[in-house]
Amino acid sequence: MGQGQFQVIGGPCSVETEEQMRMVAQALVDNGVRLMRGGAYKPRTSPYSFQGIEEDGLKLMRKVADEFGLLIVTELMDARDLPVFEEYADILQIGTRNMMNYRLLKDVGRTSRPVLLKRGMSATIQEFLLAAEYIAAGGNQKIILCERGIRTFDSETRNMLDLTAVPVLKEKTHLPVIVDPSHGTGRSALVSPMGLAAAACGADGLLIEIHPNPSEALSDGDQALDVASFTQFMQKLCVLLQALQ
Amino acid sequence: MGQGQFQVIGGPCSVETEEQMRMVAQALVDNGVRLMRGGAYKPRTSPYSFQGIEEDGLKLMRKVADEFGLLIVTELMDARDLPVFEEYADILQIGTRNMMNYRLLKDVGRTSRPVLLKRGMSATIQEFLLAAEYIAAGGNQKIILCERGIRTFDSETRNMLDLTAVPVLKEKTHLPVIVDPSHGTGRSALVSPMGLAAAACGADGLLIEIHPNPSEALSDGDQALDVASFTQFMQKLCVLLQALQ
Amino acid sequence: MGQGQFQVIGGPCSVETEEQMRMVAQALVDNGVRLMRGGAYKPRTSPYSFQGIEEDGLKLMRKVADEFGLLIVTELMDARDLPVFEEYADILQIGTRNMMNYRLLKDVGRTSRPVLLKRGMSATIQEFLLAAEYIAAGGNQKIILCERGIRTFDSETRNMLDLTAVPVLKEKTHLPVIVDPSHGTGRSALVSPMGLAAAACGADGLLIEIHPNPSEALSDGDQALDVASFTQFMQKLCVLLQALQ
Amino acid sequence: MGQGQFQVIGGPCSVETEEQMRMVAQALVDNGVRLMRGGAYKPRTSPYSFQGIEEDGLKLMRKVADEFGLLIVTELMDARDLPVFEEYADILQIGTRNMMNYRLLKDVGRTSRPVLLKRGMSATIQEFLLAAEYIAAGGNQKIILCERGIRTFDSETRNMLDLTAVPVLKEKTHLPVIVDPSHGTGRSALVSPMGLAAAACGADGLLIEIHPNPSEALSDGDQALDVASFTQFMQKLCVLLQALQ
Repeated sequence: MGQGQFQVIGGPCSVETEEQMRMVAQALVDNGVRLMRGGAYKPRTSPYSFQGIEEDGLKLMRKVADEFGLLIVTELMDARDLPVFEEYADILQIGTRNMMNYRLLKDVGRTSRPVLLKRGMSATIQEFLLAAEYIAAGGNQKIILCERGIRTFDSETRNMLDLTAVPVLKEKTHLPVIVDPSHGTGRSALVSPMGLAAAACGADGLLIEIHPNPSEALSDGDQALDVASFTQFMQKLCVLLQALQ
Repeated sequence: MGQGQFQVIGGPCSVETEEQMRMVAQALVDNGVRLMRGGAYKPRTSPYSFQGIEEDGLKLMRKVADEFGLLIVTELMDARDLPVFEEYADILQIGTRNMMNYRLLKDVGRTSRPVLLKRGMSATIQEFLLAAEYIAAGGNQKIILCERGIRTFDSETRNMLDLTAVPVLKEKTHLPVIVDPSHGTGRSALVSPMGLAAAACGADGLLIEIHPNPSEALSDGDQALDVASFTQFMQKLCVLLQALQ
Repeated sequence: MGQGQFQVIGGPCSVETEEQMRMVAQALVDNGVRLMRGGAYKPRTSPYSFQGIEEDGLKLMRKVADEFGLLIVTELMDARDLPVFEEYADILQIGTRNMMNYRLLKDVGRTSRPVLLKRGMSATIQEFLLAAEYIAAGGNQKIILCERGIRTFDSETRNMLDLTAVPVLKEKTHLPVIVDPSHGTGRSALVSPMGLAAAACGADGLLIEIHPNPSEALSDGDQALDVASFTQFMQKLCVLLQALQ
Repeated sequence: MGQGQFQVIGGPCSVETEEQMRMVAQALVDNGVRLMRGGAYKPRTSPYSFQGIEEDGLKLMRKVADEFGLLIVTELMDARDLPVFEEYADILQIGTRNMMNYRLLKDVGRTSRPVLLKRGMSATIQEFLLAAEYIAAGGNQKIILCERGIRTFDSETRNMLDLTAVPVLKEKTHLPVIVDPSHGTGRSALVSPMGLAAAACGADGLLIEIHPNPSEALSDGDQALDVASFTQFMQKLCVLLQALQ
């Protein structure tokens, strides 16, 4: 990423079953995507919401990823889980709620895994870059920055996707900058237009939530694309990326 | 606009001199643009900032527009100026500071001129649509909605361009939706990427600030494109629009 | 105001009937309040909401105010109404939606009436002071600044009352600074605690919405105090103000 | 706290030296305050800023606290530090950056120490209460909620103190609610007025930054009160609290 090669990361919000992950993996492979996401440990606003299937989810993802030749991106919430993540995951995601969890940032700064760092809900560009600096200061410079929407007054969308952050970040850093239009909008109908817009303003990649059956997803079904919509989106994206070259 | 035909509106923040407007008009014509903007009456945050050359500006724009076969878009701040605007302007702009000036909205609802309505700095999508409704309720349905950035906590850019507003508005209304990446970012280097992104997510047009010599502009020079940058941008936009068809 | 004398302005959101205004006026007089507010021309988000009874409302307020020896504070939305306001009103209110309606600010800068200027929904302190400067530049220095809540991400309250604005403004200007906890919270149960807090941090006065029967108010009933609650609040306020001396 | 007894917590942003802490402790005792704060582990936006003196700071605070008969409130950033915090600290603070660090919340939910939970920079009231629920769900119901300012567009103050959160929270929970006007404003001149306002709208306590010599503080000196100002503030607060009874 960041070397002229636009990368898409796709997968469900939560890892649920092997069948689910296999259907997602097939959709990724069919569309030339090599990076699979899925949440095993889930940071949920309420302690009574589904919290993820944890280590079982990591193992399940690893099995499916190996079968399909994919790499895994998944969220780490606690440094005590690092050993198990280092065994099963390829890219460690630090979620928006932990962007200022500086101890965790220092810990992933000492691993050899690439880190996908999501922007905090109300983090300024400068705070976002300083969070990346916490990771880099530990020796790990394989950092991917991810814009995923910020919090504003408008309630039409789950968050306010700040696409201007893309060219602003690219002026200030050589790190790759990707965009998550799924969390950034919270509504599947907006993922395609905003994903295309992200590519048009210079993003190096996208993080897209996909679920074989969004209406039955255990979390965030409203913002997931089904396989057919994802395929359609990838075709439009492909045309756009060629035009932009 | 709104009928499959992408429209660009270009011109300086403030009308300054005939030579300036002529250079802008030439750049527009050279790039196939038919709509020229320019501020004659300027709403400035400080009473001690340049306030525009007022009626002289309208006359000057009319003269240049007629010479080059262009239409004029310009901001109306007060209903008492309507007679002079109806004489010289083609499209009446209601600025972000007046989006909730309901008396002014009612007044332009009774004219026959199309109205370009800018979103208020902290207006929700619903408030924006209800402001348009004030105009439509008076009988004038020729309304163009313009996203121009909202106010958030980040100070990297002048405003936070909310591109997601484009597909959200298009779900809710048949009115054309355009984007102003000049005010929406406040920095000329960001106008091109964000203008392309606006087109990619479905905008019907763009409002672009152009100045023959941005560093000498009497207002908002930081966000104006010079003629060469504008030409370059229009070429990229053209390629993108063809790919998106 | 601003000379050590704490002032309360009370009254309904909208002027509805003479009986309503008389009951309010009696409650004001009973509590030692001399300034009565009431909206005759109403800026409503939707064109289909109640828009006020306009000139009839001004006349009705004048009649009741004279009978009870009160002064009238009421919102002016359009400079074309100035003659009728100058006939019937004592203090001209510029509402939050018009804080950046610079032409209107210039117009009230040329009157002899004191102006109560409400802070815009997303106006910075500096923009608020520059709006006041538009009025002062016209020669009218009788300006009262009113904090009434700003727009943020939280939807628990209608607006986010920014009480820190009170000491910040008082560092920067000698103008009196009052607070409107009614609009600033949008809920009657919060008016009393936030009104007391405003007094505690140095406000020079309060603007309180009162309605004889809030559940039947034509606008903003949720945030109006009834007469008994207002009386109770005034007693607490009195105790607090004495303690703060 | 929360039983009619207003509590003040005072102390420096960072624990620096024994002399510093002793001067602070003396000031607290002189003003009838029993709870001392001080940061030993510091969450700083930049990895290159002073990060605290860590375990040495906890020991130093304990020693001084015991000498003066005070209880210690200090921030825990990582569950791995719990054993050392349980040895030296009385009340565990969860900082604004970790309000959504759900693993940490679960961990402090299993301790017997009271937890002071600060509101996240852009947390809604509901998210704040759900974060407290993460702690309570673990069995620890000794939770103190702390409003410390949210992030908005205005840059006059470091944060925007949301005092309305106090009565809103008290409607929804029996947990004590305190206010931190030091972080909530970022400027020492605003601490006194906003601290008084917090008491006036029903807060159960305050968290006040005090430093014997603010201009030489290793962190956040701009918002710390010196001993004389703190004493003066406590006298005003005392008068106000008596009036409010």
